Amino acid sequence: MSRTVIGVVGASRASPGQLAHARRLGRLIAAEGWVLLTGGRDAGVMAAATAGAKEVPDSLTIGVLPEVDSVPAPGLDIPIVTGMGDARNAINVLSSRVVIACGVDGAGTASEVALAIKAGVPVVLLDPNDDAAALFGRLGRGGIAVARSPEEAIQLAGRALRKE
Amino acid sequence: MSRTVIGVVGASRASPGQLAHARRLGRLIAAEGWVLLTGGRDAGVMAAATAGAKEVPDSLTIGVLPEVDSVPAPGLDIPIVTGMGDARNAINVLSSRVVIACGVDGAGTASEVALAIKAGVPVVLLDPNDDAAALFGRLGRGGIAVARSPEEAIQLAGRALRKE
Amino acid sequence: MSRTVIGVVGASRASPGQLAHARRLGRLIAAEGWVLLTGGRDAGVMAAATAGAKEVPDSLTIGVLPEVDSVPAPGLDIPIVTGMGDARNAINVLSSRVVIACGVDGAGTASEVALAIKAGVPVVLLDPNDDAAALFGRLGRGGIAVARSPEEAIQLAGRALRKE
Amino acid sequence: MSRTVIGVVGASRASPGQLAHARRLGRLIAAEGWVLLTGGRDAGVMAAATAGAKEVPDSLTIGVLPEVDSVPAPGLDIPIVTGMGDARNAINVLSSRVVIACGVDGAGTASEVALAIKAGVPVVLLDPNDDAAALFGRLGRGGIAVARSPEEAIQLAGRALRKE
Repeated sequence: MSRTVIGVVGASRASPGQLAHARRLGRLIAAEGWVLLTGGRDAGVMAAATAGAKEVPDSLTIGVLPEVDSVPAPGLDIPIVTGMGDARNAINVLSSRVVIACGVDGAGTASEVALAIKAGVPVVLLDPNDDAAALFGRLGRGGIAVARSPEEAIQLAGRALRKE
Repeated sequence: MSRTVIGVVGASRASPGQLAHARRLGRLIAAEGWVLLTGGRDAGVMAAATAGAKEVPDSLTIGVLPEVDSVPAPGLDIPIVTGMGDARNAINVLSSRVVIACGVDGAGTASEVALAIKAGVPVVLLDPNDDAAALFGRLGRGGIAVARSPEEAIQLAGRALRKE
Repeated sequence: MSRTVIGVVGASRASPGQLAHARRLGRLIAAEGWVLLTGGRDAGVMAAATAGAKEVPDSLTIGVLPEVDSVPAPGLDIPIVTGMGDARNAINVLSSRVVIACGVDGAGTASEVALAIKAGVPVVLLDPNDDAAALFGRLGRGGIAVARSPEEAIQLAGRALRKE
Repeated sequence: MSRTVIGVVGASRASPGQLAHARRLGRLIAAEGWVLLTGGRDAGVMAAATAGAKEVPDSLTIGVLPEVDSVPAPGLDIPIVTGMGDARNAINVLSSRVVIACGVDGAGTASEVALAIKAGVPVVLLDPNDDAAALFGRLGRGGIAVARSPEEAIQLAGRALRKE
């Protein structure tokens, strides 16, 4: 039986509030016994979520790195090195049972949410801006959940897993 | 000197109005002497734009196909076969000097617009829904143009080419 | 500090001797505390190496799957789903600190050995046919090691890790 | 009806004899009315084949570039920009009706020949070293042709096209 992998995506330049959310998400994901998957770089939401997961003993963090010379986030257990730039965004979502977007304030994050919808992977938007909630709500036709806290995001992810 | 390649993206299940727009876009792109690049499949906006371009003598149509067994659009001159599914969306935008989105009513199209913004490729949204115009306007920080007709989209694409 | 990931590649239709080698390789890799990375499918060398690793408590097995609907090997802890067919072979080698080829009797395996040489990733050929040993010895310019047993392959991999 | 695309692969640091062969191959491919596809960079066999094709009026040259900042070969009509490094080698072979390897003296070329065999794309090896002829003859099980001149390579490519 494979481990349950949950993807967290978000901006490499994130606000302090988003970074706090990302760290909390990472911690909660690890506390559930799930594996955290991110874009793996030492920046923004990727690094904060990874750091949060590593606060939990026996946590496991996977990072799907864009470039051969990308600097991995501290605490990354398994770097998957793609050398494919943003084409790796497709891998991030296909490899996640649920994708949680910690804000949608960058184009890279928006591409991952869109690719997840296309691939039929459940998406939770944590505290999205109104425009992102509107567009992805429209494109996702009911498959998009919106959370207002990391705790609610984890609940919604759990619900999506049970529905599969 | 390489040929000027213009990408047209849009839904595989498009409305009659979008299909008419796509056909007109293809025709106008070819009439400018530009090369048309699409996702290459025999469906929706891809097929309509390709058909439009082939109404012009000496036009050239490239399609970046997702799967080894994808059915190419009639009139496709050069199929680039990736076998990579939607990861090929990154190639579509990186290979285009300008990306024109003929509607943003599918998640695949949204991912391509987002990836183009991320890569710094100029984007023209032709008759987008309000939610797409709002989110991509926000993410694109001024690099996103909105057109209300294929003719205006071509004008805006020409302007973006001259700015490079 | 990231975990040490060792890739094992080989044919999906392997001989009984190669399958025994692959199983032993997986077990020895896990016993070293290394993470096993394979192509992840439920076939041949990939499945045998994964099964071998899972004989060791607390082992970790990663599989970089080619297709969205590829069947994962039993015992695979983390499926990385690429949807990219054999383009994912590049990811396998870039994500491995050392690549061990358990026979070179299929074209897919040959492509992975070649890509590893290109990327500068150390390669150990376990019991290769003479033609593979000759070509990759020539292309690898001294960076290719040849082993006659799984135990020797692990020793050579350890030596390559210490040289980095 | 799509154009017939023929791939030419070979080392980025090629011998004078290989460069002359590549130039001749490009010229002959264009003279047949076929489209030349290469790795697109301004180096070695890629650049020489592209230059040869452009000696023929109305020729068409496609280059599947590895990186966003790869320098395209002079004479390249259509750059397909992948940003995927050597993962793009899979695209080169899948997009070619026949692959002609102009020497197999680099690991990148060897990976392309192996990927072509895996994908069932006919391969012609032009003046290969003995080790490459032996290994790929073994792996290709009769699907590999060996040519001693560019003219013979073109004949063998034509024969492969007629067999499809």
